Amino acid sequence: MKRIMLIVAYDGTNYCGWQIQPNGITIEEILNRNLTELLKESIAVTGASRTDSGVHALGNVAVFNTETRIPGEKISFALNQRLPKDIVIQHSREVPLDFHPRFCNSIKTYQYRIVNSRFPIPTQRLYSYFVYYPLMAEEMSQAAECLIGEHDFKSFCSARTQITDTIRRIYDIRVERTGNNITITVSGNGFLYNMVRIIAGTLIKVGLGIYPPSHVKEILEKKDRLAAGPKAPAQGLTLYHIEYPDLS
Amino acid sequence: MKRIMLIVAYDGTNYCGWQIQPNGITIEEILNRNLTELLKESIAVTGASRTDSGVHALGNVAVFNTETRIPGEKISFALNQRLPKDIVIQHSREVPLDFHPRFCNSIKTYQYRIVNSRFPIPTQRLYSYFVYYPLMAEEMSQAAECLIGEHDFKSFCSARTQITDTIRRIYDIRVERTGNNITITVSGNGFLYNMVRIIAGTLIKVGLGIYPPSHVKEILEKKDRLAAGPKAPAQGLTLYHIEYPDLS
Repeated sequence: MKRIMLIVAYDGTNYCGWQIQPNGITIEEILNRNLTELLKESIAVTGASRTDSGVHALGNVAVFNTETRIPGEKISFALNQRLPKDIVIQHSREVPLDFHPRFCNSIKTYQYRIVNSRFPIPTQRLYSYFVYYPLMAEEMSQAAECLIGEHDFKSFCSARTQITDTIRRIYDIRVERTGNNITITVSGNGFLYNMVRIIAGTLIKVGLGIYPPSHVKEILEKKDRLAAGPKAPAQGLTLYHIEYPDLS
Repeated sequence: MKRIMLIVAYDGTNYCGWQIQPNGITIEEILNRNLTELLKESIAVTGASRTDSGVHALGNVAVFNTETRIPGEKISFALNQRLPKDIVIQHSREVPLDFHPRFCNSIKTYQYRIVNSRFPIPTQRLYSYFVYYPLMAEEMSQAAECLIGEHDFKSFCSARTQITDTIRRIYDIRVERTGNNITITVSGNGFLYNMVRIIAGTLIKVGLGIYPPSHVKEILEKKDRLAAGPKAPAQGLTLYHIEYPDLS
């Protein structure tokens, strides 16, 4: 038996997120079905990040065990032949049997994209959140700084979760404007449920002038979901990549 | 009576191009139907560029005559309320009655986008052309230079056209690589049928090393469609904007 790691890119528009669920089609389900057909054995993948409905990925990670004799690095090519065009394996390879994409030490990077203009841009509508009122990117960037480091991010975690350890470390967060596009890029050792979307929704309130930049530190200290801004819509979010420093 | 100009952005994925045709839904048809309903008079727009099926636009231009009392600059807001999400008016205003978007002096800018990587990127698949083999962007850029200026672009014009004057002026053409993305940005005083897509298809052949950069000048001189490369696929092309220097 061997363990294969996949780097999975997808356009989340037409999926009910990563995780298998009864009410709609998911990325996990499509991968399981196509791997099972390809390898002629029952396959169930384990994903690194259970992205929400409508969220995109350039580099989510999944693993599965298999008896196949197909070399690890060839599985991407074979699987891509079968997958729909909105899911593409970017890379595949063999990893140690004890590698787990959620429990191993990792650095995840997400990007949240905003189109800030008078009218929406049709070709960007599926991959960004449209904000009509002018956003002050400089203030958003300033506000974001206090999130860097190890903190209790309880204020930035969906109340609909049973998790108790809400301490995470953000390595970097950048807010950049290029013309009408504003991107929030954040990397950390783990993210709570809806954390990036709540950070984006909170920074947008700063950008609109509703919160002063210094208010974000107060939100953090309150450890109360109600203190933060709303979660920004799913389509603006993309899971960029996941690095596993201990994986050789 | 007054004449209104619209700047129209659209995601061309689900349309059979700009121009009304019997076999599928088009941008022109959607605009006519919605303007007719909004203004309660029969409206027929005239477009600047009759983009092909699957081609996108950030700034195509259309004009129409109307008796409405709605101020020109308010029409964009009212019309956007009715339009599907993949067509968005970016601007509207009154223009002189003799302004014609095709026959008036203009500078059009198109962009052709290529994703050049080992595997396609799902979130870019609708707005770019995927090329697997590594492209030499520097050579493409060098090859493109000879197209700048006034030339007979007969080699770069679809044979399926009755046009006789194939002389056009290209003001600028730039090939730029950012990571796995290559963009070809070209502006000129007018473009022949499929001209930008044939230029892109030809430059891709240079990028692949099939043509040396100097060969593009020879293609131009041959004045024969068969001398140039294939037309690159529609989804990579976006009409960026159209400037009318004589329109105040």
